[in-house]
Amino acid sequence: MSRPLRQRVYFQLFGSLDQHGKLTITNKFVVTVIVISVVVAVLSTEPTLIRGHYDTLILIEIAFGVLFLVEYIARIWSIAERPGPGGAAAKRWRFATSFIGIIDLAVVIASLFPFLVTSASILRIVRLLRLAELMQFGRFSLALREIAKAVSERRYDVFVTLALTGGMILIAATALYWAESEVQPEAFGSIPRAMWWAVITLTAVGYGDVVPVTALGRIFASFIALSSIALIAIPTGIIAAAFSDGMQRHRSQHEAARLRHERHHE
Amino acid sequence: MSRPLRQRVYFQLFGSLDQHGKLTITNKFVVTVIVISVVVAVLSTEPTLIRGHYDTLILIEIAFGVLFLVEYIARIWSIAERPGPGGAAAKRWRFATSFIGIIDLAVVIASLFPFLVTSASILRIVRLLRLAELMQFGRFSLALREIAKAVSERRYDVFVTLALTGGMILIAATALYWAESEVQPEAFGSIPRAMWWAVITLTAVGYGDVVPVTALGRIFASFIALSSIALIAIPTGIIAAAFSDGMQRHRSQHEAARLRHERHHE
Amino acid sequence: MSRPLRQRVYFQLFGSLDQHGKLTITNKFVVTVIVISVVVAVLSTEPTLIRGHYDTLILIEIAFGVLFLVEYIARIWSIAERPGPGGAAAKRWRFATSFIGIIDLAVVIASLFPFLVTSASILRIVRLLRLAELMQFGRFSLALREIAKAVSERRYDVFVTLALTGGMILIAATALYWAESEVQPEAFGSIPRAMWWAVITLTAVGYGDVVPVTALGRIFASFIALSSIALIAIPTGIIAAAFSDGMQRHRSQHEAARLRHERHHE
Amino acid sequence: MSRPLRQRVYFQLFGSLDQHGKLTITNKFVVTVIVISVVVAVLSTEPTLIRGHYDTLILIEIAFGVLFLVEYIARIWSIAERPGPGGAAAKRWRFATSFIGIIDLAVVIASLFPFLVTSASILRIVRLLRLAELMQFGRFSLALREIAKAVSERRYDVFVTLALTGGMILIAATALYWAESEVQPEAFGSIPRAMWWAVITLTAVGYGDVVPVTALGRIFASFIALSSIALIAIPTGIIAAAFSDGMQRHRSQHEAARLRHERHHE
Repeated sequence: MSRPLRQRVYFQLFGSLDQHGKLTITNKFVVTVIVISVVVAVLSTEPTLIRGHYDTLILIEIAFGVLFLVEYIARIWSIAERPGPGGAAAKRWRFATSFIGIIDLAVVIASLFPFLVTSASILRIVRLLRLAELMQFGRFSLALREIAKAVSERRYDVFVTLALTGGMILIAATALYWAESEVQPEAFGSIPRAMWWAVITLTAVGYGDVVPVTALGRIFASFIALSSIALIAIPTGIIAAAFSDGMQRHRSQHEAARLRHERHHE
Repeated sequence: MSRPLRQRVYFQLFGSLDQHGKLTITNKFVVTVIVISVVVAVLSTEPTLIRGHYDTLILIEIAFGVLFLVEYIARIWSIAERPGPGGAAAKRWRFATSFIGIIDLAVVIASLFPFLVTSASILRIVRLLRLAELMQFGRFSLALREIAKAVSERRYDVFVTLALTGGMILIAATALYWAESEVQPEAFGSIPRAMWWAVITLTAVGYGDVVPVTALGRIFASFIALSSIALIAIPTGIIAAAFSDGMQRHRSQHEAARLRHERHHE
Repeated sequence: MSRPLRQRVYFQLFGSLDQHGKLTITNKFVVTVIVISVVVAVLSTEPTLIRGHYDTLILIEIAFGVLFLVEYIARIWSIAERPGPGGAAAKRWRFATSFIGIIDLAVVIASLFPFLVTSASILRIVRLLRLAELMQFGRFSLALREIAKAVSERRYDVFVTLALTGGMILIAATALYWAESEVQPEAFGSIPRAMWWAVITLTAVGYGDVVPVTALGRIFASFIALSSIALIAIPTGIIAAAFSDGMQRHRSQHEAARLRHERHHE
Repeated sequence: MSRPLRQRVYFQLFGSLDQHGKLTITNKFVVTVIVISVVVAVLSTEPTLIRGHYDTLILIEIAFGVLFLVEYIARIWSIAERPGPGGAAAKRWRFATSFIGIIDLAVVIASLFPFLVTSASILRIVRLLRLAELMQFGRFSLALREIAKAVSERRYDVFVTLALTGGMILIAATALYWAESEVQPEAFGSIPRAMWWAVITLTAVGYGDVVPVTALGRIFASFIALSSIALIAIPTGIIAAAFSDGMQRHRSQHEAARLRHERHHE
């Protein structure tokens, strides 16, 4: 009688997926393992930290790889329990070729890769995707969907803002190329070079590695810096209004439901 | 019988202009050509990229120039099909002297200029205007108009914010000129010089090429840096409120229309 | 019969003040003179610009001083026409001791000072106050008052935000003083020194003249930099909401007035 | 008859705590002492200021320590007057082990510490907590609670934003590690090192101490800098909407109360 076990495994691994409820104990364990494995992958790129601990690191990575492999096999095995038409093989195939299934497989391969290629630490960052996959459940999912909805509802505004941003970058780069290319050929000698300065200025990051020095260049740069305020204000305004609108719609729906309810009982 | 052809050409070139619908195939082709030509113009200013490809570049530019010329002539020719009073010559003259017509001509001239003056790469950026011209159609137009409306509705607030910004720049520059002109005559030796620092600080860009070093200068600069938060918060707040207001008005109009409709059917 | 002249002078100089209407021709002339005089005062601090033109500059400044003096005398003389109780002397005294009257006098004195002390260019920036005085009329006044109202309505929130900002600056400075004072005694050797870094980081200006170099200092600085987002987001949110609220109140008042009107005519 | 005195002391020290009213005279005195003591503690870390005044400083610190000790003893003594069940000892124990009581004790200990360890100036910053404790009364409390409520109501959104920020930092650091680690091993030689750059760029602080120099690194950095706008826009939008919502709810409650009142009187 292997079925009850498979059912329990299925619930533990996919429970949250089907019921939009809380994470199961297994889910929480997986989240913890992923977070630790990402932290290890990040830290293992720092030579001063791993010096002398190279063997330990390889062992830890093998452990993570095996864990993700076991989980992947368990998911493929237990997915047969998923309600719906089709045989176990069809369900497994559907899962293995789904977006989530491919991410899972990619994580397993990326985790076991260090055996083959030892410097593939960047690949291990892919494990983050597993985390993103799990974040779509529970209450975070609601907040995430709300943010995504607020942004996507105003996608034309966002797109126009992006186009205006692009235009402003191009105009800023051209102006500074015109004003500074002779004095600073290294930094402003061509429009693509001046674009680096333009992006860093318009986003108000302002590293200061490349800075106009001529009077004309500084006058241009002043206007470009001032328009960076608009570049931050407009998308913020759009997103704030979209959120505000979403909350209001929420409330007026509640209100309408309450009113209908009241009328019904009068 | 050349008329059916001219009609088809007219529709392909001006279709979106008169019907506020989608871009025609010709429009899409023109957009693609403009984007490529702008990218080529931008990249051709970089010496390390064009070295050795100078002849190819000239040929590409000639091709773009001819394309824009052909399009311009086709537009002038087919504009006679535009509905409305007046003869073909009158319509052509009206188009040629309209804002769009002048931009079109400027783009053609700027594109064919490299034959005459080879270093006129900045002029070719003018082609962007053609793109802006085409962006006013379709759904982007709505978003663009909405943003422009939200900003222009609050234009007095925006103007007051600009005046306050100007005042703050002047006060900041005067304060730092007073505090730092003796220690750093190169950077703060006059109010116009200190204005460069003031703009870069108040917009939170903060290059760091010019920085106060005296205790008094740093105390002034701290207050100025803190007021940069207000300088970002106030316009953002105004624009966010304007967008929010716009969306709400939209909804309450819908609501009012729905209510009127319901009453009518009771 | 000097009265009609005095009346006309009074209207030209104080018209906008009493009727909240447009600026009179004299007002516009005064605005232009002030703007030019401020620009001249700003530019005259730049040694490379005034070299050789020193005599011209003194003459220009004398002209401005005389103009402001004439205007001040004309205001004192014509204020006797102001409607209201009291004799001409009482009205003149009331004006001369009012806030506007004192600013006017300060501008006159600051403008005529160069005769006495030639390097008093900073004093001349005081003329800006005259501009601020004139900005309180017309439609700008409405926008300005609206902004001031939106901010002052939420003054407790603004105050709490300021207190939180102060607390964050102190905590940030203490943390970095603790982490970096030994490695960089010049920049982080005391809490007041570290506060310069804290302000520049929390406001996202980020000059880069003082930067943490130890691992611990950088970890602290990362959290401080991330909390700078909250420092910008919270006041912006408060101000955006205050504006939004103001606009809504406006509309609901209009709505209420309309409804009352409709009911009345049913 | 020591009771009336104890009652008066209780009211002076805890008055605002129990009645949510204004600060008592004693409270105001305590606030002033705390502010001065924090300023002294901050300034006393600056060697150029305290040189030669070391003895004075120790005396001032002793005075502060004694003041805080006296206040603490007075609070423990007078808390017996607090209304409610239980004897004086029980009330004192409850206060001494409460959050506020522990902060008070910590401030006393931190203030008297300089006798024992003279370099414990950082500890004295703990006095700020007393200020925070007093800020929860009166009208500031309302504003503070409103801000906290607006933020906590949208805590899932804030959490998702934090998670996205974390993800963006990790992706940005990995991208730049990949692009720049060979050219700038000191700054981008590992993902943890590149994270310093990523945080400073994404928060738009942009010190410029670490800057990408390769073409690929700059292209990545440009996209990361542009996404810093979203990183500021999204939390600002969420908070603005939460505030806006709070104000609206306030008004609609007032409105509802008014309507109910009107109906009642019809």
